[in-house]
Amino acid sequence: MDPYKLWYWPGIQGRGEFVRLTLEAAGVPYVDCARDQGVDALIKDMKQRGPFEPFAPPYLDVDTMVLAQVGHILTYLADAHDLAPKDVPTLFWTIQLQLTVTDLVKEVHDTHHPVSADDYYEDQKPEAARYAAGFRKNRMPKYLGYFDRAAGAIDGDFVGGDQWSPIDTSLFQIVEGLRYAFPKRMATIERDYPTLIALHDKVADLPGIAAYLKSDRRIPFNEDGIFRHYPELDEA
Amino acid sequence: MDPYKLWYWPGIQGRGEFVRLTLEAAGVPYVDCARDQGVDALIKDMKQRGPFEPFAPPYLDVDTMVLAQVGHILTYLADAHDLAPKDVPTLFWTIQLQLTVTDLVKEVHDTHHPVSADDYYEDQKPEAARYAAGFRKNRMPKYLGYFDRAAGAIDGDFVGGDQWSPIDTSLFQIVEGLRYAFPKRMATIERDYPTLIALHDKVADLPGIAAYLKSDRRIPFNEDGIFRHYPELDEA
Repeated sequence: MDPYKLWYWPGIQGRGEFVRLTLEAAGVPYVDCARDQGVDALIKDMKQRGPFEPFAPPYLDVDTMVLAQVGHILTYLADAHDLAPKDVPTLFWTIQLQLTVTDLVKEVHDTHHPVSADDYYEDQKPEAARYAAGFRKNRMPKYLGYFDRAAGAIDGDFVGGDQWSPIDTSLFQIVEGLRYAFPKRMATIERDYPTLIALHDKVADLPGIAAYLKSDRRIPFNEDGIFRHYPELDEA
Repeated sequence: MDPYKLWYWPGIQGRGEFVRLTLEAAGVPYVDCARDQGVDALIKDMKQRGPFEPFAPPYLDVDTMVLAQVGHILTYLADAHDLAPKDVPTLFWTIQLQLTVTDLVKEVHDTHHPVSADDYYEDQKPEAARYAAGFRKNRMPKYLGYFDRAAGAIDGDFVGGDQWSPIDTSLFQIVEGLRYAFPKRMATIERDYPTLIALHDKVADLPGIAAYLKSDRRIPFNEDGIFRHYPELDEA
């Protein structure tokens, strides 16, 4: 098959990274269009999509369709490339978990942009400090505890059992991102989630992921992305 | 079949309403468990769900599974009850739109709870005022314009064509909710989205929806829900 065309902001991991990780782990060929052609090409592309336009990147061209929304893209890829759990209850469980990852990612974004997505972080620092305090204290343990239990619900190295599926690469990214953004807080609490951390480590060892993380296709975390390290928002 | 068991907070429309509307429009029998048994029954039920626990309500018992996340529940119901668009590109399009509805619903929630989900609105009023200003000015037109174009992308009364599917009942609820929460702003801008408003009106006329809206099963909007009317957050 021709490589998929993935469109996402070229300078950040962001939401696109969840799609990249699944494609990389599966060894499915793709072109990261805006990394090749630049951000202006992405903006131009979004404007000429017509009636079935995505609301926002990331989006993936699939035959004559354009798929947007991370959970939706990953459900499609899992089905198309034989990555999905085979039994329906497990498949449905992983889809539901992925949508909960989406919710967490939005909350992570809001730790630095709580009151206005259109303003800079520097214009909402007091509000961000307040949001981040509640996120560290209440939301991080709630989500991490939930995903820790999810990681252990079915026997095997991965959420669905012995085979990885997209929820595993997504949970890997959650751990990576939270370690980057909130290193002090994660150092304090991550020992409480050993099953999730073991899952993270298994994903890191997948050949496709190990190769990807060493490549220049993996954009370093930075302060334009979703997971940002602002020391003033972190605390043990 | 036995009626579905739906679990959601009994005093509000909230996210559960998107599930209720599809069930009502389709005439699919369901029990709204916590409305019958009270909120304590919901809290107790959530605690004994075991390893496949939902992260949060609403959730729906389906055979031996429990399905959570609105978009996921609606995708299941559409498939199980022959509500979904028949061709794959249209089906995928409606699933993607529903996930964008989920994103919008979260932003609506954040207009009154921008910095702390665990504190009251009264404890974050200045932050809410700032969030709501950007929501009214930028986000409402962006989402409504997007859904207006989506409503017109395929010929017919509904998003997918001549037959309604869950995205239609969801967009009905978005219009209803925004009219309740931001009546001045909606009065100013809703004329710009005639295709979306026409879709809303067609959904209101579906026999199942018309009957539901007149019944006491439709909980009135109130200030404990997602769509809240705080006059100080509204402006033309």
